[in-house]
Amino acid sequence: MHDILVEEEVLAENERFARENRSHFVEKGIFVLNLVSSPGAGKTSLVERTLEALRERVRMAVIEGDLATDNDSRRIGRLGIPVRQITTGRACHLDAHMIHHCLDWIDEVAPRLLIIENVGNLVCPSDFYLGEDVVVTIISATEGDDKPLKYPFIFRKSKALVINKIDLLPYTDFSVEAVKGNALVVNPHLTFFELSCRTGEGLERWIDWVKEVAGL
Amino acid sequence: MHDILVEEEVLAENERFARENRSHFVEKGIFVLNLVSSPGAGKTSLVERTLEALRERVRMAVIEGDLATDNDSRRIGRLGIPVRQITTGRACHLDAHMIHHCLDWIDEVAPRLLIIENVGNLVCPSDFYLGEDVVVTIISATEGDDKPLKYPFIFRKSKALVINKIDLLPYTDFSVEAVKGNALVVNPHLTFFELSCRTGEGLERWIDWVKEVAGL
Repeated sequence: MHDILVEEEVLAENERFARENRSHFVEKGIFVLNLVSSPGAGKTSLVERTLEALRERVRMAVIEGDLATDNDSRRIGRLGIPVRQITTGRACHLDAHMIHHCLDWIDEVAPRLLIIENVGNLVCPSDFYLGEDVVVTIISATEGDDKPLKYPFIFRKSKALVINKIDLLPYTDFSVEAVKGNALVVNPHLTFFELSCRTGEGLERWIDWVKEVAGL
Repeated sequence: MHDILVEEEVLAENERFARENRSHFVEKGIFVLNLVSSPGAGKTSLVERTLEALRERVRMAVIEGDLATDNDSRRIGRLGIPVRQITTGRACHLDAHMIHHCLDWIDEVAPRLLIIENVGNLVCPSDFYLGEDVVVTIISATEGDDKPLKYPFIFRKSKALVINKIDLLPYTDFSVEAVKGNALVVNPHLTFFELSCRTGEGLERWIDWVKEVAGL
């Protein structure tokens, strides 16, 4: 009971910061995408492909969340896009307070589209609203098609599900139909994308969707 | 500061239950293996292969941790091995208290080897000692070879690192040498296994190791 009360306090504090972030983003006209997945499903690759496709069209910025290392922000930095690394230490998710600390930097770089790459974790990020417009979850075609049933909360919170690494489908037992069916059980409103960040297949539809939801 | 104190209390309570579990396991001569990985890296498949290989030799039991569904315990149940499902709801890891609740059941089924399949998460399980003998982490050859640097705590706590899905290596940019090098940076004592639960390649060495560490 004590634990639950404490958790509620933590979440209430998160909510407070998230709303402040939200007001800030709305006021500045920044569309915010919160990308979530297991470790290694391809979040950074999808960010890279998205930046490459949209860099001529719109100002963007990226926040990278990781327990340790700045590998991902260095990858993004190579593209010449403003990037901020949040190193969470032992924390298993980004929270709204961490994003709140980035607001001054966000104002400085003034993006129209802000992509937040969360810590690789299908569980904990689902509890922490950051003030984003949409959550997008990525699953890779090597992870097993029952994941939406086993980790339902993050799929329920997502607007879209990106099925990445479809170039590996011929070598796995993964069924795209099964993962979609399972995902729709927990969230009937999901939009699906099947793509490969490696080969580029299917990326165009994803980019079109980002432009549409972000009003770019 | 308040958050940190609360976390310390939670971990101190976990430690107390973990020590009770540990005493229990030692007293009953049960070797306990705590399996950790990202969602979809192949924990359940490795448990299945291990049970198949050792079922004639030794009594075993399995505890399955998942946020939702009993898919995995039904997979294990098909092999006729005693299995207990812990459904954690929103909790992102098993804790020692949950395992403590299983002690009566463990005594009933009296295994010599108990395999605990943790919730699919490379972050949170690293903080919660369950009273096990060894932690083994699984990474799949599709996840990216920098994961030990980005999620160092669980790799540091592990005795062995299983690199699964090596049948997919020809189709990815994953480097086994790089992942081993990165893993040794965070834990120089790791033992490595390269295998494919799908094709069976490399499983023999893993089974030999389990027999050796568990004294079977």
